[in-house]
Amino acid sequence: MDKTLLLNQVGNIFVEKMPFNRFLGISIQTLSAEKAQIQLPWKDDFIGNPTQKILHGGVISAVLDNVGGLLAAASIIAKLPEEELHSVPNKLATLGTIDIRTDFLRPGRGEYFIASATLIRSGNKVCVCRMELHNEQGIQLAFGTGTYLVG
Amino acid sequence: MDKTLLLNQVGNIFVEKMPFNRFLGISIQTLSAEKAQIQLPWKDDFIGNPTQKILHGGVISAVLDNVGGLLAAASIIAKLPEEELHSVPNKLATLGTIDIRTDFLRPGRGEYFIASATLIRSGNKVCVCRMELHNEQGIQLAFGTGTYLVG
Amino acid sequence: MDKTLLLNQVGNIFVEKMPFNRFLGISIQTLSAEKAQIQLPWKDDFIGNPTQKILHGGVISAVLDNVGGLLAAASIIAKLPEEELHSVPNKLATLGTIDIRTDFLRPGRGEYFIASATLIRSGNKVCVCRMELHNEQGIQLAFGTGTYLVG
Amino acid sequence: MDKTLLLNQVGNIFVEKMPFNRFLGISIQTLSAEKAQIQLPWKDDFIGNPTQKILHGGVISAVLDNVGGLLAAASIIAKLPEEELHSVPNKLATLGTIDIRTDFLRPGRGEYFIASATLIRSGNKVCVCRMELHNEQGIQLAFGTGTYLVG
Repeated sequence: MDKTLLLNQVGNIFVEKMPFNRFLGISIQTLSAEKAQIQLPWKDDFIGNPTQKILHGGVISAVLDNVGGLLAAASIIAKLPEEELHSVPNKLATLGTIDIRTDFLRPGRGEYFIASATLIRSGNKVCVCRMELHNEQGIQLAFGTGTYLVG
Repeated sequence: MDKTLLLNQVGNIFVEKMPFNRFLGISIQTLSAEKAQIQLPWKDDFIGNPTQKILHGGVISAVLDNVGGLLAAASIIAKLPEEELHSVPNKLATLGTIDIRTDFLRPGRGEYFIASATLIRSGNKVCVCRMELHNEQGIQLAFGTGTYLVG
Repeated sequence: MDKTLLLNQVGNIFVEKMPFNRFLGISIQTLSAEKAQIQLPWKDDFIGNPTQKILHGGVISAVLDNVGGLLAAASIIAKLPEEELHSVPNKLATLGTIDIRTDFLRPGRGEYFIASATLIRSGNKVCVCRMELHNEQGIQLAFGTGTYLVG
Repeated sequence: MDKTLLLNQVGNIFVEKMPFNRFLGISIQTLSAEKAQIQLPWKDDFIGNPTQKILHGGVISAVLDNVGGLLAAASIIAKLPEEELHSVPNKLATLGTIDIRTDFLRPGRGEYFIASATLIRSGNKVCVCRMELHNEQGIQLAFGTGTYLVG
């Protein structure tokens, strides 16, 4: 089995097989062992504030959690020796967020949004990611820190 | 103006005027200066895991953020002297989540869910809430801590 | 080997063998698989604010981390079958805090302080504790949430 | 009054007037409105693990909180118009940490340590800092996120 192919499959699962992610309408821009980046479109359904056209904080936490979890999945694949790649589906089935912190920096205004994650701790059982959310103009709206169970 | 009436209005705004909350379908069970409790129905759109019928972590963070923010709003109303209640709309317009931490305890299984919040720090500028999510059987699924700008 | 004896040994290590904990001067009040409680004396060395006699935030984070870590250690011992108790020292050597959040509620005033921890997620690899700090009058000063690597 | 002079005074208060910081032995490397950096020496009193010469997690949280709080103080000074600089002592007296999250990445080994902070949200009431801890070899040991009350 090929790691690039596996990464693509994982990306497809996130985007197409998770009902809540289909609602969000995310698409994957980058997915490697070091970095994940996804795009979130604007949808009126995401509005949290009735008087201003800004994202609900829950949408922001969700997309940050997604991009961190995606990178955690990629890091599992990257670490496995070729002969153990068959265990990827089992490992992904137990992948989960232990805790996440979101810091909201500015009102969530934009035409579309980019969420990105980098790996800051990569262990056999737990990995930790830092995440950021920017709008299409490059203005940072939020960031997060997520701890994921990977083993 | 009457504080109970104001609380009801705030509850209505959360439930009916915020598009993302309408998607979530939350309803308010309790709303006082000390405690807020909301109910989240099950919807297939909330599924995060394609092989198991469990809530996406982002839905959990969103509903915890909602119940904490609702309590923060109630605490603003509770503290204001009668003669300043006219300033409630302005104050609510600037109410916002500064940061939130969600701890995921168990897979988000259930027929419906109850999110509750209690106030642990109540200041003039900032309040801090602790939140919990249980399913209809009383099993705790997650908890959170949120810091809200209230002044 | 006896679990109660092991718990006592772990408590002694925390109190007597860790140089920073000797500086803090903590003593153990309760240590079981469900709850840990330690006492912190007042020392002028703990003062953070030069004009007020209150604890430095770092002392508060440290004592919360201690009581959570102590409970994580107790939970390791509690879960092990009798025939594997010989592996406790190895397991404790790899026990570590992954992340901790401290929420400061009130100025750290008191004659002495009680930090307590309860286990909210108890897994084979990771456990999560909630911690609280009160002074001798029962006034809550801070609380925390810690994620610990236990396996 | 001169802002540079005020920054120096604030630095001196952190280093010399706070008893717990004197115990830590921190010194200030950089202090501006955008960035703060402090140095922590190695001391055997900081050891958390009796079998390994590594920092206690509480020392790490404390030094991260310090450098974030120092930057929050600098940001207060930077924002004030000249004619209001006389209010700095009052403002600093109410400066406080609301919450802090520490993520531990690697065992705290080193001959000395550098903690640095950058401002990621700078409001009139609340600011948020991200902090990092490296050892003298440039290896990152921990990072943190702190929310500070500044107004």
